[in-house]
Amino acid sequence: MKLATIRTTAEAGASTTVAARVEGDSLVTLPRYADVGAVLRARALGTVGQAGSHDGERLPLASADLAPVVTSPGKIVCVGLNYKAHILEMRRDLPEHPTLFAKFADCLLGAGDDIPLPPESGTVDWEGELAVIVGSRVRRASPDEARAAIAGYSVCNDVSMRDWQFRTKEWLQGKMWADSTPLGPLLATPDEIPADARLTTLIDGVEKQHGDIHDLVHDPVHLVRYISTILPLNPGDVIITGTPGGVGHARSPQEYLRPGQTVTVRIDGIGELTNRTVAERVP
Amino acid sequence: MKLATIRTTAEAGASTTVAARVEGDSLVTLPRYADVGAVLRARALGTVGQAGSHDGERLPLASADLAPVVTSPGKIVCVGLNYKAHILEMRRDLPEHPTLFAKFADCLLGAGDDIPLPPESGTVDWEGELAVIVGSRVRRASPDEARAAIAGYSVCNDVSMRDWQFRTKEWLQGKMWADSTPLGPLLATPDEIPADARLTTLIDGVEKQHGDIHDLVHDPVHLVRYISTILPLNPGDVIITGTPGGVGHARSPQEYLRPGQTVTVRIDGIGELTNRTVAERVP
Repeated sequence: MKLATIRTTAEAGASTTVAARVEGDSLVTLPRYADVGAVLRARALGTVGQAGSHDGERLPLASADLAPVVTSPGKIVCVGLNYKAHILEMRRDLPEHPTLFAKFADCLLGAGDDIPLPPESGTVDWEGELAVIVGSRVRRASPDEARAAIAGYSVCNDVSMRDWQFRTKEWLQGKMWADSTPLGPLLATPDEIPADARLTTLIDGVEKQHGDIHDLVHDPVHLVRYISTILPLNPGDVIITGTPGGVGHARSPQEYLRPGQTVTVRIDGIGELTNRTVAERVP
Repeated sequence: MKLATIRTTAEAGASTTVAARVEGDSLVTLPRYADVGAVLRARALGTVGQAGSHDGERLPLASADLAPVVTSPGKIVCVGLNYKAHILEMRRDLPEHPTLFAKFADCLLGAGDDIPLPPESGTVDWEGELAVIVGSRVRRASPDEARAAIAGYSVCNDVSMRDWQFRTKEWLQGKMWADSTPLGPLLATPDEIPADARLTTLIDGVEKQHGDIHDLVHDPVHLVRYISTILPLNPGDVIITGTPGGVGHARSPQEYLRPGQTVTVRIDGIGELTNRTVAERVP
């Protein structure tokens, strides 16, 4: 099953969102649910996969205006240094424990939205990542509980302002920029993910990152267990699992995003983010 | 003006909360608002300070069951290393930029709640802090906008699991434990804070930390400006401004919290948190 969150235009002209089921090239809206997070909080993932009284209108997928797949996660926990190749390119040792940092809902973008490049940073970088979408509340989850708590997967670009990230020892201020982080295009349930699924990041069509999403030091089940030891994970919470090698900051010479580029992050079985970079105009 | 959030028992037995105005030894409930965050989001701070049709029942303050003053902040941004004495005791240089990390709403406790000491950590430490409660939405705030965006102040104990904090370079996993972080007892508007207000932390009545809350490297107005450069601050968001010297981890010998202790954090003009530590029982 695949679910998305799309933007609609309300009668007063205000933008709002609705969850939708993906059926081939179409979307079927689920008007009871404002986003995929609302489906999960209602514990309705098991029912909305089939046609039913919850269905609304049918729309073409290609022209949909995609919102972040969960628009307002209660928490977003991100993992650094989780693919071996990326750890080595950043010149760090393989970690015993996952490195965790946060983002906030204000950071999120839809799968086709422009990425604003703020005038305050000259070193905006890409990080294609697998996102885990939590489907049920767990605390100190066993392996089975952790596996059952994963509603599905999505694609994330953990766009990072490297100058701000490394101003202090804590990365948060380089990771929490408004409208920096595409999350989508949809939630794919675990059965949709091929055993050999790969993540690919392209800048203007040129491949910059590629990785086997099963080659994580700390896999999704372990991350749910680890994080839920610390605090509860709730439906709609998002875990972003780290990026493979090939980020711009670690290249020689270093590369950063410039206005007018197209950034694509693709994971087999889920779909892709395609975002254009634009210089942000500050009033 | 001083506002609190108190827990009430709904008819079905479920616990819920309501905002209240503090009048001397009494509270006057504000039934339209589930917590102080709801007052701020409704932009009602200017009206609820006076008696009016928004008033509910009058209750004695002393017996109130205080909830976190904002129960579900959209974001909690914390500052490390912001009092000179604490920076020096942690053996670090004075910083050009604030060090920022996050907490989530699941971390928060009320001013009189027990602090569970989880079995997974043996090094739970105190950090008394001044909290800034945001009252209006700002992005890239000017000094005047930042000052106007501060609805008021509260008291926070940024309880930290030092073993987890220092497992990796990112502190988050030692800072985001469930039910670790008392926030309260109330919001005091800026006019309530004396010019010489001091913060004091006591363990079983013994003073461990004291500091002048105006002696911050990065003061509240600067923090609102700095953080709002990165992303919007919204009504009900919380900024926790860092701790003065005297944390247990930096003492010789090191001291950590044990079950059955009483931890008090007090700031003149606001009030105090008094939380008892208990060994957490994990099913």
